Amino acid sequence: MSRKEPVPTARGLDQLVQALRVLPGVGPRSAQRMAYHLLQHDRPGAEQLAQALSGALASVRRCARCNNFAEEEVCALCRSPRRDASLLCVVETPGDLAMVEQTLSYSGMYFVLMGRLSPLDGIGPRDIGLDRLLERVADGVVQEVILATNFTNEGEATAHYIAEMLRSRGIKVSRIARGVPLGGELEYVDAGTISQALLDRRGI
Amino acid sequence: MSRKEPVPTARGLDQLVQALRVLPGVGPRSAQRMAYHLLQHDRPGAEQLAQALSGALASVRRCARCNNFAEEEVCALCRSPRRDASLLCVVETPGDLAMVEQTLSYSGMYFVLMGRLSPLDGIGPRDIGLDRLLERVADGVVQEVILATNFTNEGEATAHYIAEMLRSRGIKVSRIARGVPLGGELEYVDAGTISQALLDRRGI
Repeated sequence: MSRKEPVPTARGLDQLVQALRVLPGVGPRSAQRMAYHLLQHDRPGAEQLAQALSGALASVRRCARCNNFAEEEVCALCRSPRRDASLLCVVETPGDLAMVEQTLSYSGMYFVLMGRLSPLDGIGPRDIGLDRLLERVADGVVQEVILATNFTNEGEATAHYIAEMLRSRGIKVSRIARGVPLGGELEYVDAGTISQALLDRRGI
Repeated sequence: MSRKEPVPTARGLDQLVQALRVLPGVGPRSAQRMAYHLLQHDRPGAEQLAQALSGALASVRRCARCNNFAEEEVCALCRSPRRDASLLCVVETPGDLAMVEQTLSYSGMYFVLMGRLSPLDGIGPRDIGLDRLLERVADGVVQEVILATNFTNEGEATAHYIAEMLRSRGIKVSRIARGVPLGGELEYVDAGTISQALLDRRGI
């Protein structure tokens, strides 16, 4: 054993492996694989990634109205005169906003919580900007707030909390519909969804 | 539809999502999740990652002797007088080298292929530095080359190719042993491994 040397390493490589672990879902093994791949096969890509990181850190901030990521004080969507300013859709993340936009069936405004209430993780009303949501809703133009948080426990709790908060201030609040998804076969849909679809049945 | 605006986006954010896709195993979804996470929750980490990328690109190169990542012309392990220079262990990746080192049971030198032969992917002998391996072996000190490539089809083919190449030059070549792993129960070991363990049985 006395003849053993420590494993030889390049310090810059170790630092890169360590730094890659800030990425969500990246553990020690994949960080190592990523570092090897970049240094071995894609140095131009690594260069671009370094620049994109610095660029985004410098340019990306929050829209003052919808709280989404933006490069201006107020984002293009919030500035658009063609959107219906009387509707405000509340979503958890920018990804959720993009999904709603892709439907091409909504032309109102948005508010992005950038999260959900999660007392266990210490995420309370202020952490998801509910004070700013209240301000936003008080502009005298918004007529209805549509809650489009996820149908998870935390998303439901968040929707419930926001609904209580806004209703007490006399604002109309709605929740997007729960039910059997399009193309869904009852045999493969979970019981909870079916029981909700029965409860929320509508006359035809 | 005519009232629709494009999904509002921050250009720096889009570029970051795109740039993250150079990482192996990262598709559009996880790239987006990573970008949101960094901008939302870990800006210092993103800053560090940008610096680590630039730092590694500037400082990390290949050891002239073993082909591993290094910051000097010849890495610490290759320079060490305490290693047995008559043994040369050939591995596919720096990760494999680290695994062999962790066993604390080998004190020879290494050569890192940084890959394996893979004709389907267009990876031939020159791409894994076999010309440099030949040079390395011709130093008059190396007595035996130990092939420690993986026991995959490609790793086996690579070992076979190198063995032929070196044997024709009169160099002693060996392959690390195949068999039932330590703690392995025959019931849970695949048939191929068991049949190899039978073939390679040794007298006790």
